[in-house]
Amino acid sequence: MQCIEQHRSFDGWQAVYQHQSDVLQCAMNFSVYVPPYASAERMPVLYWLSGLTCNEQNFITKAGAQKYAAEHKVILVAPDTSPRGETVADDAAYDLGQGAGFYLNATQAPWSQHFQMYDYIVHELPAVIDAHFPSNGRQSIFGHSMGGHGALVIGLRNPTRYASISAFAPIVAPSQVPWGKKAFTAYLGDDQALWSQYDAVELIPSCTAQTPILIDQGTVDNFLQEQLKSTLLVDVCREQDYPMRLNMREGYDHSYYFIASFIEEHIRFHMQYLTAEHADD
Amino acid sequence: MQCIEQHRSFDGWQAVYQHQSDVLQCAMNFSVYVPPYASAERMPVLYWLSGLTCNEQNFITKAGAQKYAAEHKVILVAPDTSPRGETVADDAAYDLGQGAGFYLNATQAPWSQHFQMYDYIVHELPAVIDAHFPSNGRQSIFGHSMGGHGALVIGLRNPTRYASISAFAPIVAPSQVPWGKKAFTAYLGDDQALWSQYDAVELIPSCTAQTPILIDQGTVDNFLQEQLKSTLLVDVCREQDYPMRLNMREGYDHSYYFIASFIEEHIRFHMQYLTAEHADD
Repeated sequence: MQCIEQHRSFDGWQAVYQHQSDVLQCAMNFSVYVPPYASAERMPVLYWLSGLTCNEQNFITKAGAQKYAAEHKVILVAPDTSPRGETVADDAAYDLGQGAGFYLNATQAPWSQHFQMYDYIVHELPAVIDAHFPSNGRQSIFGHSMGGHGALVIGLRNPTRYASISAFAPIVAPSQVPWGKKAFTAYLGDDQALWSQYDAVELIPSCTAQTPILIDQGTVDNFLQEQLKSTLLVDVCREQDYPMRLNMREGYDHSYYFIASFIEEHIRFHMQYLTAEHADD
Repeated sequence: MQCIEQHRSFDGWQAVYQHQSDVLQCAMNFSVYVPPYASAERMPVLYWLSGLTCNEQNFITKAGAQKYAAEHKVILVAPDTSPRGETVADDAAYDLGQGAGFYLNATQAPWSQHFQMYDYIVHELPAVIDAHFPSNGRQSIFGHSMGGHGALVIGLRNPTRYASISAFAPIVAPSQVPWGKKAFTAYLGDDQALWSQYDAVELIPSCTAQTPILIDQGTVDNFLQEQLKSTLLVDVCREQDYPMRLNMREGYDHSYYFIASFIEEHIRFHMQYLTAEHADD
């Protein structure tokens, strides 16, 4: 693991590391913000999953999250959104291939060799983080757009691993919208049962645990009607009595200006579940 | 004037406008953050000047200033760092020509036709802002690196226009450092008296007013020893009994991570002088 960038930020450290991923079979960058801490101190970890076209940089340069991570003593980790490199399969479109991993394990050629982002995020990356940073083993997950989808799916499928889930403008029902149908067809083929394992709206009815969910969605988001469809998640959560809070934010769009405006609330939300009094949740 | 981008941000609006500058004889972009406000309300304006290679985007995407502007009710304006366009003179180097205007009025060919950033910032842009946004006519100025130099020079030379001055990692003595010598030679020729009009360390002894100055400087900033030399400003301010506060920030570098960490303090500093009880300063 190699540190390729490091900056003092709110008296902690914002760094970017590169490591060789066994799961993805390529070099991967991830960013880590470590708050100021005493040498024996251990902190929970909050994983951020970014959206289409993003890499490990977008969140750390634009969201303004470091201030709140420092205040609340939580490590922030933001991985890249797909495997990368010249030997990794790709597509000319922005919504398939590199930069568009959709946080799933691909089963179809040519994608299946490298596109195993679900296993990378759930298993390999947390092991790296826990081995190298002052983590206390507690973790939660959040993300934006495609990364909001990733946070919901990964959080819902792993209730013992993640204490809470939140998302900004997530794709809640990829099986029903153009971005998701295109990606799932390419990465997963026609197996609808497999699709449903990566679709938050499909997963909610079979959840045995009830990991708390917070969602923020801008009302003037260009992708709301066609790709995001947050009401589908509202409906299924209501039917299933699943605890989910959706804040519709008047006048906000899909950008990091929206994320920055509410990132403090999301970090506060997660800290309720990541702090010590909930350690046996 | 055309709005080319607009986003809701902390319940106000972050926008980018393009207008035709008479002073610079080209189209110019500038960004404006307007906090949430009542219809009859008027607010002070804080001008941000960016550093080498930057345009109107860097500050608005990376500094995290909107939250504090919204809280304190101050309009933030961030112009581009030079005239732009195919007909505007340029140089292959990053530190001369487009993206490197140095906030001065050039006297030398080929630069003098367009490179009149001092007049643009002091006269033309504030007139545009006051005509189109809810400004109360009070203003202060701050900036980073080359923009810190610009804020110091413009603030010191116009004490009746700017209530306060601050800077992150400014070039304080451009006449004495490589960046400044190169730019001043190209833009201003050999006239040392003219150089001194754009050099904060040279200006301090002749200041009749004492506009308050705040500076933050990272201790591991790569440019500190060769280009920034903040101690030269400390020395002249001490000699001249000029009120200036310099915070040396242990472990911080030259990046926007440094700026974001202390932007709240800078906005608070300016608000002391921009608020109503100081309106007759």
